[in-house]
Amino acid sequence: MEPSHSSRADEKETGRLEAFSDGVFAIAITLLILEIHVPKEVEKGGLAPALLAEWPSYLAFVSSFAIIGIMWINHHRMFEFVRRIDQTLLLLNGLLLLAITFIPFPTALIAEYIRHPDEPVAAAVYSGTSILIAIFFNLVWRYVAFQRHLLASKATPQAMDAITRGYRFGPLLYLIAFGLAWVSATAGLLMNLALAVFFAWPRGRQ
Amino acid sequence: MEPSHSSRADEKETGRLEAFSDGVFAIAITLLILEIHVPKEVEKGGLAPALLAEWPSYLAFVSSFAIIGIMWINHHRMFEFVRRIDQTLLLLNGLLLLAITFIPFPTALIAEYIRHPDEPVAAAVYSGTSILIAIFFNLVWRYVAFQRHLLASKATPQAMDAITRGYRFGPLLYLIAFGLAWVSATAGLLMNLALAVFFAWPRGRQ
Amino acid sequence: MEPSHSSRADEKETGRLEAFSDGVFAIAITLLILEIHVPKEVEKGGLAPALLAEWPSYLAFVSSFAIIGIMWINHHRMFEFVRRIDQTLLLLNGLLLLAITFIPFPTALIAEYIRHPDEPVAAAVYSGTSILIAIFFNLVWRYVAFQRHLLASKATPQAMDAITRGYRFGPLLYLIAFGLAWVSATAGLLMNLALAVFFAWPRGRQ
Amino acid sequence: MEPSHSSRADEKETGRLEAFSDGVFAIAITLLILEIHVPKEVEKGGLAPALLAEWPSYLAFVSSFAIIGIMWINHHRMFEFVRRIDQTLLLLNGLLLLAITFIPFPTALIAEYIRHPDEPVAAAVYSGTSILIAIFFNLVWRYVAFQRHLLASKATPQAMDAITRGYRFGPLLYLIAFGLAWVSATAGLLMNLALAVFFAWPRGRQ
Repeated sequence: MEPSHSSRADEKETGRLEAFSDGVFAIAITLLILEIHVPKEVEKGGLAPALLAEWPSYLAFVSSFAIIGIMWINHHRMFEFVRRIDQTLLLLNGLLLLAITFIPFPTALIAEYIRHPDEPVAAAVYSGTSILIAIFFNLVWRYVAFQRHLLASKATPQAMDAITRGYRFGPLLYLIAFGLAWVSATAGLLMNLALAVFFAWPRGRQ
Repeated sequence: MEPSHSSRADEKETGRLEAFSDGVFAIAITLLILEIHVPKEVEKGGLAPALLAEWPSYLAFVSSFAIIGIMWINHHRMFEFVRRIDQTLLLLNGLLLLAITFIPFPTALIAEYIRHPDEPVAAAVYSGTSILIAIFFNLVWRYVAFQRHLLASKATPQAMDAITRGYRFGPLLYLIAFGLAWVSATAGLLMNLALAVFFAWPRGRQ
Repeated sequence: MEPSHSSRADEKETGRLEAFSDGVFAIAITLLILEIHVPKEVEKGGLAPALLAEWPSYLAFVSSFAIIGIMWINHHRMFEFVRRIDQTLLLLNGLLLLAITFIPFPTALIAEYIRHPDEPVAAAVYSGTSILIAIFFNLVWRYVAFQRHLLASKATPQAMDAITRGYRFGPLLYLIAFGLAWVSATAGLLMNLALAVFFAWPRGRQ
Repeated sequence: MEPSHSSRADEKETGRLEAFSDGVFAIAITLLILEIHVPKEVEKGGLAPALLAEWPSYLAFVSSFAIIGIMWINHHRMFEFVRRIDQTLLLLNGLLLLAITFIPFPTALIAEYIRHPDEPVAAAVYSGTSILIAIFFNLVWRYVAFQRHLLASKATPQAMDAITRGYRFGPLLYLIAFGLAWVSATAGLLMNLALAVFFAWPRGRQ
């Protein structure tokens, strides 16, 4: 098979994995809203307070939106360097997507239990999911970075190292958010949100 | 890196942001139907009146469908002029998508509370979301329009100015709908619907 | 602007409308399953009969899957002939997608009311939605067929006429299914299903 | 029509079927999470045990995620060999997608009934769906493999035979999982999960 054909086939293959992953990210991020419920059987004058009392749902919604959004951006950046996929990459990417599709559940859980005595349990499940996502993302990235035959020509060792350094602290930072969540679920959510904004914030050069 | 390669990479990058955004628009617009509920435990002869009594749900469904649809068309038009994306554009586009994915909630809220004494509260949340979407859309557009290095060559200053003028009154018109919603939620919904049709209506030349 | 550039831009534009429409079709077809509910609080030995008693849900699911699927195939065939889109086509296509996203509601309605005294009302809503879809599809097609500047070069008058003839009886056939649904909702659903299979059935030559 | 044009048109056509199928796979896999419910009205100290008691939901979620994921990978591999689609392929692919979109229902069913006296019924429905998917997948594959005019040039008889042999035992293995499910639903789920991992596991060469 001549190189050009092979290269086009590779691009198609990579493109379809990206498209499938994008679909999962886009659906998971849009399903989050289904976990915010309309207040029922509210008396006259009671709707505004009932809506305000749902702030944990809004906070969890925005925090989870930020986590999925930043993961999508990272995924998209990573695949700029990927020219081919293999079976192991498919499996690792599948683990990452499994954790992404799981997010709506801990999101609903924390919104329900944020002022309940068991708030720390809900917060731990939420933060645990974030850590798992960060770990799976690092697994995918490290596999890609060390399988040089999967990389596009623009993936120079320097470029790869810079990114690896950037991701290195992700799981640790999410672990701190996990610890914080045991003290206060709200603080844990806010730190998750802050981390997503921090990772997405425009740097000096892209 | 030679220009042609760079240009293809840019297109792929832009294409993936468009595809992700399209996914979110498509899912949000399709999830709206989940907020219309089948009437339960209806007596013989009671289904037709029960279905008719749900007209606020249908109106909210069509109005939200129109808002998301017109936003998709605008987004699509805007990205015809975009050649590259940067981190700030990703963030601003993320804010727009956050507001888009939120729509199913105020849609369900207004359908539930349209003849309730707290109707104005529900209508304010609904119209407030519309205004937020219009503001975020203007933010994205203005950022794109002033970052000329992100623009494709066909984005001449005249073409850009014409579009900027077209979008200028969006937030103001949605603000009027917001005011109207305090008087009558139904009128507010109808104005939201009328605005979407107005923005989408075929002009003399596209 | 040189023709080749313009032609590529057109293709991108058409491609994005197709991708968005595909997204809506794919989501609507997949959401249908959410309307089939797991039987609750079933006694020992009661699950199998409870599952069998849900046959109207399965029939409605399959029938709606077939309607959306055949519409997707038709949409896909139609856009093979479309080279450009304009504002009116966007609007008409939007009406078609509105009716497509609505389908999960009548699907749930008919499944709930199929053995209820008000079965004919539910069946009429279901068949009415089918007719609306067939009408909107014909509107889109007729607009495309008569706006020759939107057509690709392979869209010869003969090819277009053959397709127009093929679609001509769609609304009428769905009208017969509508009438049949007043007699028996089950017969109406089965006719809807049969029509979809009929339209999708492989002909002598594609 | 010159060959190159025809070939591009074929690719577009095939691409759109792949994109639609990908959308259905991605949505079905992401909707699975909606079947895991947040425990309600839990006393202090009761959330952790309530979450642990939901293990059948998690197991069913992971098992169904694996089934849909492996089917997506297989679908993606198969379409690498497909150059054209015809009406029959559309229909067979539609049957496969119908079974895929159905999965969230048996997933919720088995999660609900796993420790209920009627567990074998739920397990049989779940495994029956898996078998159906494996059968429909084989139907699509065999149709493609024997319609050589639909195949791309890289689909040599040897390559096709190797894949056909690989898929041959799929339905049989799922049939064993079906039998196992009558003894223990948990064992059946675990075998479904093991099969998906087995089919996805990286082989010596891709």
